[in-house]
Amino acid sequence: MGDNMHEINLSNYDLRTDLIVEQNIKKDEISKYSCNNILVESIVLKKNNKLNKKEGKYITISYKDVTDNDNYNNVLEIFQKELNKVLDYLKIKKRDKCLVIGLGNKKIISDALGSKTIDNVIVTRHLYLLNNVDKNYRNVSILEPNVIGVTGIDSFEIIKNIVKGIKPDFIIAIDSLCAADIRRVNKTIQITTSGITPGSGIGNSRIELSKDTLGIKVIAIGVPTVVDSTVIVSDTIKYLLKKISYLKNNDNVIDKLKPIDKVDYINNNYELQNEEKKEILGYIGLLNNNELKRLVWEVLTPIEANMIVTVKDIDFVIDKLSKLLSQGINNVLHHID
Amino acid sequence: MGDNMHEINLSNYDLRTDLIVEQNIKKDEISKYSCNNILVESIVLKKNNKLNKKEGKYITISYKDVTDNDNYNNVLEIFQKELNKVLDYLKIKKRDKCLVIGLGNKKIISDALGSKTIDNVIVTRHLYLLNNVDKNYRNVSILEPNVIGVTGIDSFEIIKNIVKGIKPDFIIAIDSLCAADIRRVNKTIQITTSGITPGSGIGNSRIELSKDTLGIKVIAIGVPTVVDSTVIVSDTIKYLLKKISYLKNNDNVIDKLKPIDKVDYINNNYELQNEEKKEILGYIGLLNNNELKRLVWEVLTPIEANMIVTVKDIDFVIDKLSKLLSQGINNVLHHID
Amino acid sequence: MGDNMHEINLSNYDLRTDLIVEQNIKKDEISKYSCNNILVESIVLKKNNKLNKKEGKYITISYKDVTDNDNYNNVLEIFQKELNKVLDYLKIKKRDKCLVIGLGNKKIISDALGSKTIDNVIVTRHLYLLNNVDKNYRNVSILEPNVIGVTGIDSFEIIKNIVKGIKPDFIIAIDSLCAADIRRVNKTIQITTSGITPGSGIGNSRIELSKDTLGIKVIAIGVPTVVDSTVIVSDTIKYLLKKISYLKNNDNVIDKLKPIDKVDYINNNYELQNEEKKEILGYIGLLNNNELKRLVWEVLTPIEANMIVTVKDIDFVIDKLSKLLSQGINNVLHHID
Amino acid sequence: MGDNMHEINLSNYDLRTDLIVEQNIKKDEISKYSCNNILVESIVLKKNNKLNKKEGKYITISYKDVTDNDNYNNVLEIFQKELNKVLDYLKIKKRDKCLVIGLGNKKIISDALGSKTIDNVIVTRHLYLLNNVDKNYRNVSILEPNVIGVTGIDSFEIIKNIVKGIKPDFIIAIDSLCAADIRRVNKTIQITTSGITPGSGIGNSRIELSKDTLGIKVIAIGVPTVVDSTVIVSDTIKYLLKKISYLKNNDNVIDKLKPIDKVDYINNNYELQNEEKKEILGYIGLLNNNELKRLVWEVLTPIEANMIVTVKDIDFVIDKLSKLLSQGINNVLHHID
Repeated sequence: MGDNMHEINLSNYDLRTDLIVEQNIKKDEISKYSCNNILVESIVLKKNNKLNKKEGKYITISYKDVTDNDNYNNVLEIFQKELNKVLDYLKIKKRDKCLVIGLGNKKIISDALGSKTIDNVIVTRHLYLLNNVDKNYRNVSILEPNVIGVTGIDSFEIIKNIVKGIKPDFIIAIDSLCAADIRRVNKTIQITTSGITPGSGIGNSRIELSKDTLGIKVIAIGVPTVVDSTVIVSDTIKYLLKKISYLKNNDNVIDKLKPIDKVDYINNNYELQNEEKKEILGYIGLLNNNELKRLVWEVLTPIEANMIVTVKDIDFVIDKLSKLLSQGINNVLHHID
Repeated sequence: MGDNMHEINLSNYDLRTDLIVEQNIKKDEISKYSCNNILVESIVLKKNNKLNKKEGKYITISYKDVTDNDNYNNVLEIFQKELNKVLDYLKIKKRDKCLVIGLGNKKIISDALGSKTIDNVIVTRHLYLLNNVDKNYRNVSILEPNVIGVTGIDSFEIIKNIVKGIKPDFIIAIDSLCAADIRRVNKTIQITTSGITPGSGIGNSRIELSKDTLGIKVIAIGVPTVVDSTVIVSDTIKYLLKKISYLKNNDNVIDKLKPIDKVDYINNNYELQNEEKKEILGYIGLLNNNELKRLVWEVLTPIEANMIVTVKDIDFVIDKLSKLLSQGINNVLHHID
Repeated sequence: MGDNMHEINLSNYDLRTDLIVEQNIKKDEISKYSCNNILVESIVLKKNNKLNKKEGKYITISYKDVTDNDNYNNVLEIFQKELNKVLDYLKIKKRDKCLVIGLGNKKIISDALGSKTIDNVIVTRHLYLLNNVDKNYRNVSILEPNVIGVTGIDSFEIIKNIVKGIKPDFIIAIDSLCAADIRRVNKTIQITTSGITPGSGIGNSRIELSKDTLGIKVIAIGVPTVVDSTVIVSDTIKYLLKKISYLKNNDNVIDKLKPIDKVDYINNNYELQNEEKKEILGYIGLLNNNELKRLVWEVLTPIEANMIVTVKDIDFVIDKLSKLLSQGINNVLHHID
Repeated sequence: MGDNMHEINLSNYDLRTDLIVEQNIKKDEISKYSCNNILVESIVLKKNNKLNKKEGKYITISYKDVTDNDNYNNVLEIFQKELNKVLDYLKIKKRDKCLVIGLGNKKIISDALGSKTIDNVIVTRHLYLLNNVDKNYRNVSILEPNVIGVTGIDSFEIIKNIVKGIKPDFIIAIDSLCAADIRRVNKTIQITTSGITPGSGIGNSRIELSKDTLGIKVIAIGVPTVVDSTVIVSDTIKYLLKKISYLKNNDNVIDKLKPIDKVDYINNNYELQNEEKKEILGYIGLLNNNELKRLVWEVLTPIEANMIVTVKDIDFVIDKLSKLLSQGINNVLHHID
C-alpha cells in the first residue's frame, strides 16, 4: 500500500470547527462545573493565544437532552446563569440597549435557530421611542439579516449599516453551528464574547461580527445543528478503537453482564499501543485525527457522498432549542417578575 | 333628530386612501385603455397639485380576477408592460442596480404581499460581487424590513441605512394597501413613482420612502388587500342609492327579466334628487361621502366593531398575486429569453 | 320608490347563522351568569322546538378579548368549566375513549381553528394499544379530515368510516363558524351537544355530525371567525338607529362630556318610533332584519362585492384561540395534576 | 483482540433496507437502461423468491440531481414513462378511480415527501360526485393519514377504513424511505407493485399496504431521504477499501494527473486480497458487510451517537422532489393536453 498512500496528502487538511471545546486545550485552563448532568466549561483566551483563536470568554454548556420538561428547565436555568455572567464580564449595564440578531436562513430548518429564536424575543425599542414602556424592560430590537445567497447582501453588511444607524450598545447574535464531534449535535450551547462569523454559504464573504469590526460588544450564542459526514466516519473510527481498547482492558464484571450496546466505554482512558491499533485497523489505525479526516474526505468527495447532515427530527429539536434560547435571553435582558 | 345630529362632527373625517383613482380626479387628466377586461388608468401629477398628492406618475391596473390561468396571464402581461413604461419614464438604465423591498409583516397573511413577492425575485448582487454572472441579469438584491411592531426598528430606518450602505440605483417597494372601495380589494395593482409610506401599525413613524427621503428613484407597487368595515358600510349605502335609482329609471326590458341579483346597475349615471334620497334613506341619504363615513365610524367604534377586514381566502389570493408580481418584476428587471 | 321596492323580494332570505344565541330565543329559556366580564348563556332545546333547531344543550361563552394574558386565563377557566359540565350532561365516563376532530381547511387561516387546535391535543390511543400509559390520561386520538374541495372526499365520509373502524365512545369536533353579528367575530365560543355540520365549501354535501348520523355522542365546539359583508352592513344600520335613538333619549351628563366615539350606546333599550326611523333612514329604516339583509345582499351581489371577510390579524387570533381550546380540552379530557 | 471480538455478536444484525436494488440480486434478473445519465433498473420478483421479498415489479430510477432545470425535466420524463408502464403492468384502466396517499409526518420535513406530493395532486372525486367534470380527468382523491405517534391511529387503520368506505380501484402511496447506501439519499425513486410498509415510528404496528391487506392494487413510490449514521460509516469503510484498491491497481496516467478528490474510483472492479485488506484496515477489513454494520452500530449506540440523519438542505430537496412526483402523477393519472 505504502507508495499509493503517499499520494494522499494528509498534511494540511483542516475541517471547520465552530466549538472551542473541540480544540486542543490544556485541562488546567478550563474551569468546569457540572449540575443535573449538565457540564459547563469556561475558558478565557488572551490575545495571541496558542490556539490561534480570538481573545475572549468562551462558555460551553453540554447536556444530554432538552425535549423532556425537566431537562429543558435545567438547561434553561444554567443558560440564563451563564449568559448573565457574560453580561457582567462585559460590564453591560441595565440601561444598555441590545440588538438581538438571528443569523442563518430560516427556510432551511437546520439553519433557522437564529431566526426562530428572535421570533420570541420581547422587543421594546419602538415603545422606548414613544416613551411608553415599563423601565424594567430593557431597550431591545431584533434583526434577521438572512443569508447572502437569498438576499444578495452579505449579512455583515446589513448588520454594520443597521448598527451604524440605530446605535445599540451591544449585540447578541444567535447562529446554528457545524459540529466537529457527532456527540455534540444539538447537545451543546456555546456562548462567547469573541465574536462570530456568520454562515458558510457559497459566496459568503464571511466577515466576523465582533467588537473589532462593529465597534460594540458582541455576545455570540451558537448550537451545533449539523455535522459533516467526514466527521461522522472519523469520529466513529476513533470511538471504535476506544471501545475495543475498553473491552480488552475492562475487568468490570457488571459490564460483562450487560448487553454489549449498553456498555458505556467512553470514559475509558487506556490507550491502545500502536501494535494493537494496527492489528485492529491496519494502517488506518495509525493515522492521527487530521490524517484520518483528510482520508475520509478523499474517499467521500469523488463519489459525491460527503454531505453536511442533520438529525431526522431537526424540526422538533430547533423548535425546543429556539424556545429555550429566547426564554433565557428574555429573562436575562428584561427584569420581569 | 336635528339637534343630536349636530353633536356628530362630520367636518374633517379623513379615511386613509392609498389609491390615487379613489381621489376626485378630473376625467380629462387620466389617460386610459382597456384590454381583455383589464382597465389601465394613468395620470401624471405635478408638484402642488390640487389633490394635495405628491408629484409623479400613477398607474392603476384594475382587473376582475387573477386566479384563473388566462386572467392571470393577461394581468401579468399588462403589469409587465406598465412597469416597463415606468422604468423608461424614470430613465432607469439596463445596468442600474435595483433593491427590491418587501414591506409589511409576513406573519399576517393579508400584510405579507411584499414579503412573499420578494421570496421569488431573482437575486444576483452576490454573483456580481464574485463577477460570476450573465450580464443579461440585472444587479438585484432584496430586503425585508418587517414592521416596527415586530422588530422595534422603523422600516424606513432599516431601508435608509441599507441604501446608504449598498448604494442601489433605484428601489422597487411592494406593499399591501388599504382599499377605500370594497370593489377594489385584491383587484387593483397601483404602480407609482411618487413613493410610498409603509404600514399603518401602531407606533409606526410612517416616514415616506421616496426620492426626497432616500436620494434614489423609488417605484412603489401596491395592491389593496384589506378594507375598513366603515368603508364596507358606507360604500354599500352609496351603492344602495345607485341601485334604487337604476331600478327607478331603467326601462331596459332585458334587465327586468333578469333575476334581481344579476342586474349590473353600477354604470347607471342617473342622479337621484335630494327629495328621492330622503325618501329612501332619510337624513342619512343626504350626507356626503365624508359625512357618511364619519357617521358609520362613530357607530362602529364605541362598540368595538370597526374592524380592518380581508377576504376569507386571503391566503390563496396572496399566493397568486405575489407570484404574479414577482414574475413580472423578474421579467422586467432581467433580460432572460 | 314604492313600485320598484316591490320588485325586491324580501320574503324568504335566510342568512346562515351558526350561533344559537343569534336566534330569537325567549329570555326565560336561557340561564345566564357572568364572571370577569365573560358572559355564559346556556339553553337546553327539546325535540321539535319552535326554533327549528336540533335538540341538545347549547352553551355560549362571550368575551371581549383572549390576547391579554389575564383575559386568556379567565376565558380558559370558564371554557374548561363549561366543557366539563357538558361531559357530565352527556354522562361521559372517565374511561370513555375520545376522538377529537379538527374540521376545516388548514391552508385558509380563518378556517384553520380546528386543525390548529388538534395540533396541541395530547394523544394517547397508540400508548393504550401498547398498554404503556398512565391511566390518568384518557384514551384520545385525533383526526383532521380536511375539506372535500381539497381531498375529494366529504369530511363526513372520512369521519364515519374512521369512527366505524376505531370505535371511539364520543367525539369532540372543532370548527370555525360564520358569525351573524359583527360583534361576535372571534369573541364567542359555542359548545353544543346537538352536532355540527362541517364547512360550507362548494360541493360539500354538508351532512351533519351528530349522534343520529354517527351513533356516538358528539360535542361540537365552534368560534365564529368570519362574517358576511351583508351582515356587516345590516348590523351597522341596526346599530346606527340604536345610537341615534340613544343620543335622542339620553340625559346622562357624563356621556355628553365624553368624546362621541366613547359613548357606549349598546345597552340603550329605548325603541324608536316608526316615524323617527323613517326620518333618519327613510324607507330603509322600516325594514325588518331579514328584509334589510336581503336588500343589502341584492345591492352587493351583482357588483361582486359580497365577500366573506375576516379580521386583518386573523393569524394571530387563531393562534391564541387554538391554544386556548387545546389547553382546555387537554385539561378536561386528561386528569393530570 | 480475538477473545473480545467474540463477545460482539455479528450473526443476525439486519439493518432496514427499503430499496430493492440494495439487495443482492443476480445481474441477469435485472433489465436496465440508461438515458441522460439516469439509470433505470427493473425487476419482477416471483412469489417465494430467494430474496425473501414480496412478489411484484420493482423499478428503480437513479439520478444525480433534480435541482437543475434540465435534470429535473429529464427525471420527470422517465418517472412518468415508468409509472405509466406500471399502470399498464397492473392492467389499470382509464376510468379506474385512484386514491393517492401521502404517508409520513408533514411536520418533520425529511418525512414530508408524501404529504407535500399530494398537496399538488389534481383532485376530482368531488367533481365526479357532482357530475361536473371533464372526463379526461380521472376520478382522483387524496388522503394524508399522518403517523400514529401524532394521531394515535395507525396509518394502516385509517387507510383500510377509508378504502372500505370510498372504494377506489387502486392506490398510489408515496413515502420517504431510509437509504441503505449513502449515495442513494435523495437520488433514487423506487416504484413498486408489491406494497409498502409505512413509517418506522415508535409504536407503529407497521402493517403493509398491499393488495393482500387492502384488496385493491397498490403502487408504492418512495425516495430515500434519510440514512442511518451506521450506514454512513460502514459504507465509507467499504469505499475506502475500494479507493485504495483502485489506487494500487490503476495505471491510468490521466487519473494520476488529476487532484486526488476528482478521481472517480467507484467503478473499479479489482478485488483486494484478504492480506491486503488486513494490511489496510486490520481485522475490520476482514468483516463482511453485515458484521461491519453490526460493529459500527455497537460502537455508536452506547454513546448515543447513532442518529438517523438527512442532508442539511432537505427543505429545498423535498420541495423539488415533491413537485416532480406530483407533476408526474398528474400527467399519468389525468389525460390533459
